[in-house]
Amino acid sequence: MTDLSPLLDNDPVVATAGTDMLADSIEQQGSTVFRADWQPPHPDTAAALARLATDGRMAEANAAAVDRLLAVRPHLVDVRIARDVFAGMSERTLFHAGPPIEWERASGPMRGAIIGAMLYEGLASDPDDATARAARGEIELSPCHHHGAVGPMAGVTSPSMPVAVIEDGAGSGVSYSTLNEGLGKVLRYGAFAPEVIERLQWMDRVLGPVLGAALRSRGPVDLQSLIAQALQMGDDGHNRNRAVTSLFLREIGAALVEGADAPVDQRLEVFKFVDGNDHFMLNLVMAAGKLGSDAAAGVTASSLVTVMARNGTDFGVRLSGTGDEWFTAPAPPVAGLYLGAFTEEDASPDIGDSTITETVGLGGFAMAAAPAIVGFVGGTAAGAVRRTLAMYEITLAEHPSYQIPMLEFRGTPTGIDAGRVVRTGVLPQINTGVAGKVPGTGMVGAGLVEAPIECFVDGINALAASVNKS
Amino acid sequence: MTDLSPLLDNDPVVATAGTDMLADSIEQQGSTVFRADWQPPHPDTAAALARLATDGRMAEANAAAVDRLLAVRPHLVDVRIARDVFAGMSERTLFHAGPPIEWERASGPMRGAIIGAMLYEGLASDPDDATARAARGEIELSPCHHHGAVGPMAGVTSPSMPVAVIEDGAGSGVSYSTLNEGLGKVLRYGAFAPEVIERLQWMDRVLGPVLGAALRSRGPVDLQSLIAQALQMGDDGHNRNRAVTSLFLREIGAALVEGADAPVDQRLEVFKFVDGNDHFMLNLVMAAGKLGSDAAAGVTASSLVTVMARNGTDFGVRLSGTGDEWFTAPAPPVAGLYLGAFTEEDASPDIGDSTITETVGLGGFAMAAAPAIVGFVGGTAAGAVRRTLAMYEITLAEHPSYQIPMLEFRGTPTGIDAGRVVRTGVLPQINTGVAGKVPGTGMVGAGLVEAPIECFVDGINALAASVNKS
Repeated sequence: MTDLSPLLDNDPVVATAGTDMLADSIEQQGSTVFRADWQPPHPDTAAALARLATDGRMAEANAAAVDRLLAVRPHLVDVRIARDVFAGMSERTLFHAGPPIEWERASGPMRGAIIGAMLYEGLASDPDDATARAARGEIELSPCHHHGAVGPMAGVTSPSMPVAVIEDGAGSGVSYSTLNEGLGKVLRYGAFAPEVIERLQWMDRVLGPVLGAALRSRGPVDLQSLIAQALQMGDDGHNRNRAVTSLFLREIGAALVEGADAPVDQRLEVFKFVDGNDHFMLNLVMAAGKLGSDAAAGVTASSLVTVMARNGTDFGVRLSGTGDEWFTAPAPPVAGLYLGAFTEEDASPDIGDSTITETVGLGGFAMAAAPAIVGFVGGTAAGAVRRTLAMYEITLAEHPSYQIPMLEFRGTPTGIDAGRVVRTGVLPQINTGVAGKVPGTGMVGAGLVEAPIECFVDGINALAASVNKS
Repeated sequence: MTDLSPLLDNDPVVATAGTDMLADSIEQQGSTVFRADWQPPHPDTAAALARLATDGRMAEANAAAVDRLLAVRPHLVDVRIARDVFAGMSERTLFHAGPPIEWERASGPMRGAIIGAMLYEGLASDPDDATARAARGEIELSPCHHHGAVGPMAGVTSPSMPVAVIEDGAGSGVSYSTLNEGLGKVLRYGAFAPEVIERLQWMDRVLGPVLGAALRSRGPVDLQSLIAQALQMGDDGHNRNRAVTSLFLREIGAALVEGADAPVDQRLEVFKFVDGNDHFMLNLVMAAGKLGSDAAAGVTASSLVTVMARNGTDFGVRLSGTGDEWFTAPAPPVAGLYLGAFTEEDASPDIGDSTITETVGLGGFAMAAAPAIVGFVGGTAAGAVRRTLAMYEITLAEHPSYQIPMLEFRGTPTGIDAGRVVRTGVLPQINTGVAGKVPGTGMVGAGLVEAPIECFVDGINALAASVNKS
């Protein structure tokens, strides 16, 4: 199908679909026409959609699933060490972003992050040694999403890393994420230079313990409240997290001033580290999203998208009604703004679990709340609004807490219905960072990308088959 | 002239001006018409405008004045005690908001704040005693604006109060403001209950010294940078200052963690006090504005508005080319949202120096950056955008640093030209808090108001007369 996204950032033109008569006629009159080859519904899913619509079963299942997604109350309660949190995580286990992947098919930034994590864990003596060992299968790779966790970009999570613990204040769920390292040369973008490893060591020695002590001393931080406020302060929750990071510093600042069982130099380092990184809260917003998405999983016949995630090679989607099954397609390239001398030639395809934000009504779905983000990911403020408006076409609810002031406080479009995606051809809009394709490079830019339709087509067909069986 | 502001918050209708033929015809066809009695230019100023336009003298003067306004770089450098800062401030001097006023004509909230300040300074034993002494002329009243200072609402500044010191990083100017007390029952809204006086005492005993020490230890805080960032985070700089307050806490947080020559309990109190008051930065944004407005003052033939300020009785305006002269009109009532059981019956007319924000391209002029503000002051997000767009009609520049993301990063409309106000009839849009009219009440609401045209008419006529003489 045609990529419709250029329509969002440019001035209105006539767009046509179907037979060419209209387009031909307009062009003969000297006007510009955008010809889309869209047709509703996606031809490969017509039969499946018809079957799923029978008796209103899918609609009922979707209402139940999105209610579950909206009912969670993510509270940040602690920071612990990965090996103490994840049952069965061996010393040679590394979690990673996206659907399952093996070293052989892993992208450059994923390989770079695996190398870095091996150096950090003492599992290899140098990058070449790490590469050889990984290629020999010495490392056990497993998706973060299989363990209630999420990780941005490569998402590599190793046993010694501190992880944030998010509990459901309104239920029994729990989710996890690593802590954010900042931008530039960082592990999650595939960098593994000594400075990267040293920063990771400081994070497990100082950042994790001091933050954990501050949280235990002050009590849980209500992430939903912070995110809701941040959307009224120009954040989208994915690539613009300056407001929520500021609000988080306000939440923990008193504990850092007071003591929180840590020496003053460490508290000072932690304050400055968080203050120096406006993306600090990304990982925690992601984990908050994972809590909702896990709560919505497992509703028979529901076409709600519970997971969109990429490993740099594959883009993967899970639906509520199809359980643990992944529906994958090649990870697409990202159109965006590049840092310094980098160009799209240097870019790895789309990567990271951070699309959990779009999955729960944030990120690309909330860009109307965050017009300033276009300075980071490209596009125009008007286009940011149009992206959000388009997402109402494929979502099941408007988030009651996450409101967009510029849309007169309308709730963000939340809960992607894979059925509507294939029926309308409107694809989930994602904003994202871009990693260098050569292992070790780090960040090269940021931009905009759409989820590939194939994942949703396969998901809907599998869902229809599962309903037929049951 | 007709109040045009309802046009901003409602759906488009046909608005007519001039002869009635068009309006009559449209109404006969069943459509709604908004009849405005506007006519360009304001009839009392036509001759003056013609004289000022001669030889392009006013245009040249305005360009010079607005350049000066835009050239300042406000840096918050210290917190000191008022009596040590203001030359010739006696123990019985109280500064106040707006143009000059005497006790006899003072509004309820102004009287309430004077009573409170007298109790705080030990100049009276109780409210009745304060009232009697003030009525006998024992207190010397003087506008903040006459001393390089600004104060929100009643703006009462007494000798023992801590004041923020703002210096021009690009010049030699300096400006001052009191520190913000929070919302509700506070002195600036005319409250004088014991809790109000106790808070003021804590502010001079703890808040001022700790903040001053933190500033001296870390160095100046670049207010222009913070305000610029805050406009990209949903602040307008007048009634929405949550982002800039968050960013300020990030600026001083490390000093509060580290020590800053103060005991930990006091540093903790200061952190929590600022964190608990999203309006904390209002006073400092105002002082930053005062620095620019003072820099722009005194340009012969310039119709740039350097001051808009209200004392609850009079609304006063100063122009660059007319020096220290005030042009006043009755302070208008405010249309807005009221707290609890309060209604417009309880409201004092417009009051405060906080209109310095509108004078320098913030507040009502920057509402397109702050759509969430409508939850506090009323109106719609679309109306907030229209208010900003209307202000480009009467301003001399677009601020190079204060940008509005939703308008594709267009600079805020900055530097009101009194000539354009009288020529177009477009009035400066102000958002503001509302004080109770009975002394001692405190805050009763917040809302929107327009500056009265008479101030600008008188100003332009005086400016024309001054040019004629020179």
